[in-house]
Amino acid sequence: MRRALDAAATAARDGEVPVGAALVWQGEVIAVAANAPRTLCDPTAHAEMRVIRAAAAALGRERLEGAELWVTLEPCAMCAGAIAHARIARLYYGASDAKGGAVEHGPLLFTQPTLHHRPEVYGGIGEGEAAALLRAFFRARR
Amino acid sequence: MRRALDAAATAARDGEVPVGAALVWQGEVIAVAANAPRTLCDPTAHAEMRVIRAAAAALGRERLEGAELWVTLEPCAMCAGAIAHARIARLYYGASDAKGGAVEHGPLLFTQPTLHHRPEVYGGIGEGEAAALLRAFFRARR
Repeated sequence: MRRALDAAATAARDGEVPVGAALVWQGEVIAVAANAPRTLCDPTAHAEMRVIRAAAAALGRERLEGAELWVTLEPCAMCAGAIAHARIARLYYGASDAKGGAVEHGPLLFTQPTLHHRPEVYGGIGEGEAAALLRAFFRARR
Repeated sequence: MRRALDAAATAARDGEVPVGAALVWQGEVIAVAANAPRTLCDPTAHAEMRVIRAAAAALGRERLEGAELWVTLEPCAMCAGAIAHARIARLYYGASDAKGGAVEHGPLLFTQPTLHHRPEVYGGIGEGEAAALLRAFFRARR
């Protein structure tokens, strides 16, 4: 989660909502990314999507069975859907997101019976620092 | 929808689940793509994601306000989430997807009060041909 939090801090410096993610494959961090939709002109460039795509490309495989995804904020519906498609085994996240989250809020995506795969989910990890980064970012823009 | 259906047929020839999409910006088709997660080693490479990313990159903007997205199959949660993030104005889709769909099935994503943006939605367009492509594909793999 340290690597994900550092990526989130980088996002804030780039004017992006500070969220970061890291992907662990066979005990090794193989992808780290910051949220970057503005910078990359890509509405899908959330931190989770970026590490999943980078890891899948690096490994040359469509699915990442057994992988762990660490992210500083509760994933949205898009990212939770991608996590299921990628067959991520374990999801660890920091702050919860009452507005945009889709894991413990809104559509509660991983409880949907139609979902092909659901990861183990562990929330609240590094929550204090993750939430502080977000609060500082939005306070500065008000 | 013709362009999206042709892309879906291409996907089938490449051994991918036959789904295709096209993105219309200011009356012009600016992106067409087939579903390609296996070919691209990218679990997020659904047709909808690919046209959104291509269009946003081509236009150099994060959001595609006013755009229309045409896709041959009801979007999943990941794609519906991306459609909301991209601020797509109108979504036209072909076949409905009781197993993986997130628009009229499962999480009914565009009815979620937490969603930032919801497009106008028109289903069942080109449904017969879209569903026939999918049926033929899955029949051949059984």
